[in-house]
Amino acid sequence: MSGTPVTALTIAYDGAPFAGFARQPGRPTVQGRLEDALRVALRREVAIVGAGRTDAGVHARAQVVSFISAPGDEASDALRTSVNALAGPDIAVSEVRSAVPGFSARYDAVMREYRYLVVPGPVPPVALSGRAWWSKRSLDLDAMREGASNLIGEHDFRSFCVTGSAEGKRTLREIAVLEIGETCELGEPCVVIRVAGRSFLHSMVRIMVGSLVEVGRGRRDPAWVADAVAAGKRGAAGQTAPPHGLTLWSVSYPEEYWLQP
Amino acid sequence: MSGTPVTALTIAYDGAPFAGFARQPGRPTVQGRLEDALRVALRREVAIVGAGRTDAGVHARAQVVSFISAPGDEASDALRTSVNALAGPDIAVSEVRSAVPGFSARYDAVMREYRYLVVPGPVPPVALSGRAWWSKRSLDLDAMREGASNLIGEHDFRSFCVTGSAEGKRTLREIAVLEIGETCELGEPCVVIRVAGRSFLHSMVRIMVGSLVEVGRGRRDPAWVADAVAAGKRGAAGQTAPPHGLTLWSVSYPEEYWLQP
Repeated sequence: MSGTPVTALTIAYDGAPFAGFARQPGRPTVQGRLEDALRVALRREVAIVGAGRTDAGVHARAQVVSFISAPGDEASDALRTSVNALAGPDIAVSEVRSAVPGFSARYDAVMREYRYLVVPGPVPPVALSGRAWWSKRSLDLDAMREGASNLIGEHDFRSFCVTGSAEGKRTLREIAVLEIGETCELGEPCVVIRVAGRSFLHSMVRIMVGSLVEVGRGRRDPAWVADAVAAGKRGAAGQTAPPHGLTLWSVSYPEEYWLQP
Repeated sequence: MSGTPVTALTIAYDGAPFAGFARQPGRPTVQGRLEDALRVALRREVAIVGAGRTDAGVHARAQVVSFISAPGDEASDALRTSVNALAGPDIAVSEVRSAVPGFSARYDAVMREYRYLVVPGPVPPVALSGRAWWSKRSLDLDAMREGASNLIGEHDFRSFCVTGSAEGKRTLREIAVLEIGETCELGEPCVVIRVAGRSFLHSMVRIMVGSLVEVGRGRRDPAWVADAVAAGKRGAAGQTAPPHGLTLWSVSYPEEYWLQP
């Protein structure tokens, strides 16, 4: 562990213009755009690590990224201002914090919360078109909640990840929170699915949402969700919900990681 | 007055792709797009009248438009479905109603409500970038409310409309509601300015909002708003707030205009 403190940025972004979080040569990514802005702001190469490697089209409200600090780095408010001027308008830094040496936004996260919006009904949701999944069929929320009860707690989620992505990896995960509620955003009534856990497999949240929406539409029984978990193969679960309904909402860390300013 | 019933559509739209509500040759407009969709759906020329002629970039949640019905017109649910398929994705019809002969969405409206979103603070509002005005400076809401009290009720709003637009016209208007509140949309805390009245002058809501934001930023005293009204000329009021923060929220009509289905 190095003795150099780590800088953590809390960031929001619109997923639409990006080919995902992770840097890819020749494509617009959140990591690429942010590292480019940091290079200009700090006048050195910076490699960031993100708490969540969100897929193409997935939004973030309070993603956290970290990088190793250097002595000449700008103070937090100045860094926020310069990165926002350089990286915008689809990415915004809301907070800059100092963390203990060795801190990693990815490995030290103890909770990640995602929220997924679905607008059910015959009318396309104009104000939320880029932020919610439109389901023409109505949704039975009680059935979805019953289905969701089969996912809460610790399970092997092999059925709920992209085929091949978990090859030889541990697929046991614990879902701490899975709540299905009703809300209204920008004047549009919608269903919000709130999911929280320490970590997730690749596309796990979207496959959970896609499966629960199949239950909500009446195409599957709530008990089918338990069967899908038990089967242990991707084909047993439902469709992957589209990325634009999903937002990485927040990431939590133990308080002792933060250095007082 | 003709004996033919009138069809009223409640519509939502995203203002960004349109050069405003009113049809203009060679430019994308809400009226143009909707009349084109109705021509295909109803197999005849249709001329619509809108409750609010929103400017370029202004959104609508429940704008109302009307047109004279014809015997062969599709039933309401079928018409909604076909217009949504033809006019989308930036325009959506949420409701189709029948009104008494002679009904006009424009002239028979008794109340129009607009909502304007402002996000104050140093962080650009990514999730609301197309739906809220970003004010880097913080806003003193109590000062804004005090300023707003000078606009509620009946006044000559000549200072609060586009220069030249009220030439020779009556500029007396009554503001029934003007409330400044705090809300949270898509996870972003924001200020919402709610304005309702029977009718408004051209850009009146945006000039009211722009003036109140100047008060909120501390650039003007609340009492200056009363002076701006009294002056009776555009230059006395504040800047015109940008269109993308504004939404035509709803339009009200007396119940007796609607024909029972």
